[in-house]
Amino acid sequence: MVDAAEEVGADAVSHGCTGKGNDQVRFELTFFALNPKLNVVAPWREWDITGRELAIEYAKKHNISVPVTKKSIYSRDRNLWHLSHESDILEDPANEPKKDMYMMPVDPEDAPDQAEYVEIEIEWGLPVSVNGKRLWPAYLLTELNEIGGRHGIGRIDMVENRLVGMKSRGVYDTPGGTILFAAARELEFLTLDRETIQVKDSLALKYAELVYAGRWFDPLRESMDALMQKITETTTGSVTLKLY
Amino acid sequence: MVDAAEEVGADAVSHGCTGKGNDQVRFELTFFALNPKLNVVAPWREWDITGRELAIEYAKKHNISVPVTKKSIYSRDRNLWHLSHESDILEDPANEPKKDMYMMPVDPEDAPDQAEYVEIEIEWGLPVSVNGKRLWPAYLLTELNEIGGRHGIGRIDMVENRLVGMKSRGVYDTPGGTILFAAARELEFLTLDRETIQVKDSLALKYAELVYAGRWFDPLRESMDALMQKITETTTGSVTLKLY
Amino acid sequence: MVDAAEEVGADAVSHGCTGKGNDQVRFELTFFALNPKLNVVAPWREWDITGRELAIEYAKKHNISVPVTKKSIYSRDRNLWHLSHESDILEDPANEPKKDMYMMPVDPEDAPDQAEYVEIEIEWGLPVSVNGKRLWPAYLLTELNEIGGRHGIGRIDMVENRLVGMKSRGVYDTPGGTILFAAARELEFLTLDRETIQVKDSLALKYAELVYAGRWFDPLRESMDALMQKITETTTGSVTLKLY
Amino acid sequence: MVDAAEEVGADAVSHGCTGKGNDQVRFELTFFALNPKLNVVAPWREWDITGRELAIEYAKKHNISVPVTKKSIYSRDRNLWHLSHESDILEDPANEPKKDMYMMPVDPEDAPDQAEYVEIEIEWGLPVSVNGKRLWPAYLLTELNEIGGRHGIGRIDMVENRLVGMKSRGVYDTPGGTILFAAARELEFLTLDRETIQVKDSLALKYAELVYAGRWFDPLRESMDALMQKITETTTGSVTLKLY
Repeated sequence: MVDAAEEVGADAVSHGCTGKGNDQVRFELTFFALNPKLNVVAPWREWDITGRELAIEYAKKHNISVPVTKKSIYSRDRNLWHLSHESDILEDPANEPKKDMYMMPVDPEDAPDQAEYVEIEIEWGLPVSVNGKRLWPAYLLTELNEIGGRHGIGRIDMVENRLVGMKSRGVYDTPGGTILFAAARELEFLTLDRETIQVKDSLALKYAELVYAGRWFDPLRESMDALMQKITETTTGSVTLKLY
Repeated sequence: MVDAAEEVGADAVSHGCTGKGNDQVRFELTFFALNPKLNVVAPWREWDITGRELAIEYAKKHNISVPVTKKSIYSRDRNLWHLSHESDILEDPANEPKKDMYMMPVDPEDAPDQAEYVEIEIEWGLPVSVNGKRLWPAYLLTELNEIGGRHGIGRIDMVENRLVGMKSRGVYDTPGGTILFAAARELEFLTLDRETIQVKDSLALKYAELVYAGRWFDPLRESMDALMQKITETTTGSVTLKLY
Repeated sequence: MVDAAEEVGADAVSHGCTGKGNDQVRFELTFFALNPKLNVVAPWREWDITGRELAIEYAKKHNISVPVTKKSIYSRDRNLWHLSHESDILEDPANEPKKDMYMMPVDPEDAPDQAEYVEIEIEWGLPVSVNGKRLWPAYLLTELNEIGGRHGIGRIDMVENRLVGMKSRGVYDTPGGTILFAAARELEFLTLDRETIQVKDSLALKYAELVYAGRWFDPLRESMDALMQKITETTTGSVTLKLY
Repeated sequence: MVDAAEEVGADAVSHGCTGKGNDQVRFELTFFALNPKLNVVAPWREWDITGRELAIEYAKKHNISVPVTKKSIYSRDRNLWHLSHESDILEDPANEPKKDMYMMPVDPEDAPDQAEYVEIEIEWGLPVSVNGKRLWPAYLLTELNEIGGRHGIGRIDMVENRLVGMKSRGVYDTPGGTILFAAARELEFLTLDRETIQVKDSLALKYAELVYAGRWFDPLRESMDALMQKITETTTGSVTLKLY
């Protein structure tokens, strides 16, 4: 977005985040990190667009075509890494997620009764192949999302403590990520000693905290990457996991 | 053991640990914490009893009756909290645990296709009832071991970094403990804020480290207990988990 | 202030903090912790009182008597614990503080050439007497401020990273606090082991962070107090320091 | 020593550490890291050389010339970085160090009444010049030892918790190191933000712990160096300190 703004000579960018989430913080800190002079317009927070219907109306009035799908009752976000569900029945922490929320993984109760093995090859701490196929990261993750998904792997159902201070229930599906994390961890048990694992884990929490708070372009994140690269230099090997 | 030694006026106690594990450290630090004058005799480490057969022979010679069971190929430890397997085929980290190692939980592949719900009530951070039945801790854990066990819950298969510096593969089953941990965690997501969870988690690692190293009777452990008691004062509620 | 508001039936309290410091956060979080319904009026931040002169004018207009002292060029804060200086020449980190900033301690260059000894008695981690005189905390600190002050002890000259993101140079004088901290530390080297000191130090950072951020009435702070009380149970003894 | 052993084809090296200190651990872990096959002979720990006199006698008997100086009552260690004193009157923590223990710095009471300024230039977090003179690290430190020494700077008098579990009183003088640490810290207050300083400080403790335990050649230490290098990339500038 920052590149695009520069290309067309825009002095501001706009995003569709509301005022309650972490996403607004992430967008705006990143804009600022990459171009501190760029202004930000946040219609949901600053204008009188306070709901989905008003947003669609506004788009119509200005001839912006919006692919209006059947209104979903959940608030969903999806990318290569994960799919999240929030709001509606999830607002009450006593409610179990519904069947129709399983989109990336199947419901574990519907998963095959036959286990499946998957082999991940790791070089210098990074995954490079699945079942012997060497794949670029995005393809590798897509492959693992599919494999893990059919065994109902990777759901976390939790209450989050947001940056703005609210608590929020969410259901997060990350089939491929869950498999990758398990594989890397298993290998590290063999390649790292106890103290190194402790330091790595404690920095990983800090790393996650920074990224969560939208501070990807923080020199501290880059410094932690330098340590992680060095620390995982010997984490090379092959891990076979059984999925059920 | 320390109490018994005092009762009979013994000036030493003995244990059957070998020289490779963490157990020897735990026994001996605890003896020392409770009675620094008590001597320790460790036949496996100090005498010429270097194997199971020699130990049985020694017992026979001194008329000590030993319930000699059919020789197991694994090294097993079991208590109310867990069952662990080590050695034999597990020595190669590429080997999958065998069917006959499932003793507390069933193999997840053999677990019922029907999920089961369990309700845990927690007061001040401590579990007090299961499915509405108020139970003393040991009975509560026994109940949860059974419930979790029939759904194949609670296995960890990992490589440990021992105190003496060795790495050791182990398979650990803790059905009840796994359920309790999940229930407490879910409730804390609602009762604690982000920073409190972070502090609690980081102290929990230290707590585990102390206990692992046999330092239960360390003033630091008692100090952490004081914090934990205070921090969980508001963690009271009921959690329902779905086991599958 | 919260008590006073309740006594007179006020539905709001007011403070004189500007919008740049940490003090506003501390006042307002504490008001909120003690009475969440109390409104806050912050004239410097919300009204058009944007400077010292306007504030004095406003006071005159409403017949509020203000002890207007000769205008100081520094921004100073003073309480029993410390005296701080900010702004003016300190804004340039290359500038050395001036002679006239020494108010609690004397300039070390003007301190007597003769060293002085002070004996602090500590019970359960808390100071109870100075040079054999048993004193209530406030008197004890006053005494140590005087003793330390005449030897030029306790100045920190640093750049602070404020909550609102600004950096700010400040000169902080805490003669008594510096002596107390040193005395407690010396005694703890004898009463605590390495790991306990590490845990205590790491929690102390968190404790300071909470208090700095105005979160005194946070359950986490109370939980850390429970640990600190337990951990310092054996820190009892007498420490003699040489001041020069 | 490891290089020398290889040159002359020796299959063992020897050191003069007793069995109580940390030095034995550091020597032996480093030998092992650099050449795991090298044997270690530790006469003080393994033979019947149990004191200074016996060691001198042994040397005489084998025609090894030893520069026998007048017997010192303290146990001293000195290198470019520091000078330490242990034992004798220091064994009682209530005793003040004696005048004759000041060798690197003068006694602060004897330091000149005139303060002195020193300017340190730092590039990428590392000191490169003193008072405008660009110096190699060893010369730079020598220069600062002299400058700091004449103002009585850099003494720490503390009780140490040794690796072997003993507590030990020691007086440590590091005039140059103290100045360097203060200068770097002052500059970092300007170049780093709060969170980065926290992460750096917490890793620094771990770093010190590793080095203290003789684990210089540990991949974890190298990984932390990678982070430190990256984190201090912008710490470049000049710091002037006033020594008194």
